[in-house]
Amino acid sequence: MNRQCILVSRPEGIAQAENFALVDAEPQPLAEGDIRVSNRFLSVEPAMRGWIADKGNYAAPVEIGAVMRALAAGIVIESRDPDYPVGQAVTGWFGWQQEAVVRADAIVRRIGETDLPLSLSLGVLGINGVTAHLALTGIGEPQAGDTVLVSTAAGSVGSAVGQIAKILGCKTIGITGGPQKVAQCTGRFGYDAAIDYKAADFDAQLAAVCAGGINVYFDNTAGAISDRVYPHLALGARVIVCGTAAIERWDPWPHGPRVERHLLVKRARMQGFVIFDHMDRYEASVAVLADWVRSGQLVYDEDVLDGMDAAPDALAGLYRGENSGKRVIAL
Amino acid sequence: MNRQCILVSRPEGIAQAENFALVDAEPQPLAEGDIRVSNRFLSVEPAMRGWIADKGNYAAPVEIGAVMRALAAGIVIESRDPDYPVGQAVTGWFGWQQEAVVRADAIVRRIGETDLPLSLSLGVLGINGVTAHLALTGIGEPQAGDTVLVSTAAGSVGSAVGQIAKILGCKTIGITGGPQKVAQCTGRFGYDAAIDYKAADFDAQLAAVCAGGINVYFDNTAGAISDRVYPHLALGARVIVCGTAAIERWDPWPHGPRVERHLLVKRARMQGFVIFDHMDRYEASVAVLADWVRSGQLVYDEDVLDGMDAAPDALAGLYRGENSGKRVIAL
Repeated sequence: MNRQCILVSRPEGIAQAENFALVDAEPQPLAEGDIRVSNRFLSVEPAMRGWIADKGNYAAPVEIGAVMRALAAGIVIESRDPDYPVGQAVTGWFGWQQEAVVRADAIVRRIGETDLPLSLSLGVLGINGVTAHLALTGIGEPQAGDTVLVSTAAGSVGSAVGQIAKILGCKTIGITGGPQKVAQCTGRFGYDAAIDYKAADFDAQLAAVCAGGINVYFDNTAGAISDRVYPHLALGARVIVCGTAAIERWDPWPHGPRVERHLLVKRARMQGFVIFDHMDRYEASVAVLADWVRSGQLVYDEDVLDGMDAAPDALAGLYRGENSGKRVIAL
Repeated sequence: MNRQCILVSRPEGIAQAENFALVDAEPQPLAEGDIRVSNRFLSVEPAMRGWIADKGNYAAPVEIGAVMRALAAGIVIESRDPDYPVGQAVTGWFGWQQEAVVRADAIVRRIGETDLPLSLSLGVLGINGVTAHLALTGIGEPQAGDTVLVSTAAGSVGSAVGQIAKILGCKTIGITGGPQKVAQCTGRFGYDAAIDYKAADFDAQLAAVCAGGINVYFDNTAGAISDRVYPHLALGARVIVCGTAAIERWDPWPHGPRVERHLLVKRARMQGFVIFDHMDRYEASVAVLADWVRSGQLVYDEDVLDGMDAAPDALAGLYRGENSGKRVIAL
C-alpha cells in the first residue's frame, strides 16, 4: 500500500495536524510515459500555507481530499519513460506520499550531485538555496561592500542568502529570534552582525548596525520587522519580497505603515520573487551552490522528521518555530 | 528693488499663504562668476510641500527667512560668467523672486526651444514632462499593448504620462476627480478610459477597465486610490512611486493595507523616482518631448497666475485643486 498524507479541510490561518489525514492507497499501475518514484525525503516549507489557502495565490490551491502538494526527492523504481530509467535520483512534485506515479513534467530535475546527500535537493540545493541565490542576485543586485540585511537570517532561505552575500563581498546583517539563533547567525552562518527581534533594544541595535543604510533587504516576513527596517533603507536600496511569514491571515487584509514614502525618498525598489518563474536558471544555480557546499563556503542545517506519521503536524510545527534548519521528512 | 516671496514659518501639513511673506530686497551686486536672471515665470509644484518640510525628504529644507526654493524661467540680464551671456533664456533654481543672482550650478539648462513658449520649460518641457517621460520609460518599461494606469491623470505630470504611454502603443487609463476632468482625460489627453475616484461605483469601474490587469501603474498619490489599484496589478507589473499627494502628513506615519503580498503574488516591482537623480538625461528627454509638442502629439494645460502677489497662496491653491494644468506665476 502507498501511504499518503491528504488535505481533509482548509485551515483558517496556519494549517494544523487536524487539517490532514494519513491514508493507505492502492498502488497505481503505470501507463505509457508514467514514472514511479519511491520518495526518500519529503519537503516541508512555509509556502505550503499558500498552496492550501483557497485564494489570492500564485498557484491553484490543493484540493480537499488530494495528496498534499510537496516537493520530494526519491529514486525511480519503475518507468515507462525512457528518459527516466530505474535507479535515477530525481526531485520534483511528488507530494506527501511514499510513492508517486508522475509524468516527466512533475520532475524538477535529475539529481546529479551523487557525492552529496539526497536531501539537499530539497534545501540548500533545492528551492531554498536557488531562491536565495537567484532572488538575491537577480533583484538584490548586491555589490561588494553593500550592506545586506536578511529578516529570517537563520532560516533555510535566509541562512543561504547571508552566506552568498558574504561570498559576494557584502557586509551581512541578520535578524532572527532568540540568543541561540543570533549566535548561530554570527557563528555558523558568518553574518557580520545579528540582532534578536525579540530584544527590548532591537530598534537601537538595528540603527547602530545599519548606520550607513541598508542597500539590500531580503525579506521573508512582511510584518512588524519590515516596518522597522524600511526607515533604514539606503539611497537606491533593493527590497526582495520573498515571503510573508509574519502575516497569519490576509482576510481581513492587514495594515501597516505605508511604504511609498520610503521608496520615493530613498529611490528604492521593492519586488516580489517566486522561484517558479525562474526554473530556466535552476540547474545553473544548483551547480554554483553545489560547488560552494563542497568547498565549505555554504553550510546548511537540516531538521529531519522521521516517517510519514510526522507529516500532518509538520507544517504547524514549522510555524511554531520548532525546527532549526530545513525541515524534511525522511521515509 | 527685488520683490521676493520668503518662507516665514514651517507649516503643519500643507503650506498656507500665512507661511510666506512678500518682501523687497536690495538688488545684489555681481561677483566674478555671478549671473543675474530676470525671472519671467515661477513654478508652483506639489513637491514644494516636501522642500519646506523639516525632515525626511530628499533635499535640505528651505530655511525660515529664505526665498522660497523654486524652479523659474527667465532671461540673463547681467553676467560675469562668459558661458551665460546677456539675453540667454535659462531655467533653473532661481526661487520665488523677480531677479536672481546665481552661479552656473543653479542653472538647469539653456532654453533652446525658442519657437515654443518660455513657460513650457517649467511644465511639459521641464521637470513635469521629463519626470513623466523618464519615470515611465525607465521604471515602467511600457511595452506596446500594456495597460498603463495613471492616478493623477489630468495633472501636469499625469497628463504627459498618459499621452506618452499612448504614443508608445499602450492602452491608457486615467484616474481623476470629477466629471469635468474625466472628460478632459478621454478628450484632450486621449486616455482610452478615465474613471472618477469620487464616483460611488469607482471600484466596479476600475475592475471593469482593468480586467486584464494593470501592467504599469504611475502613481502620484500613495493613498486610498492606490490601495484600490494594487489588487488589480498584472503579473510582473511595475509601480512607479512618483509622489504622495494623497498623504497630508507623515507624522504620525499613515497606515494602509500592506503591499508586500501583492508584490509577491504578482511578482511586481514598486520603485521611487526623483527627477534630480536623472539630470544627465534631461536634455535628451526635452528634445524628444519638444518634438512631440511641435507635432501636436503631446498637449498640455497651463494655469497662469498673475504677478508676485499670487505667490504666497499659490501652493495652498494647488492642494485645494483649483488649478487645471501646470501652475506658474507670470511676472
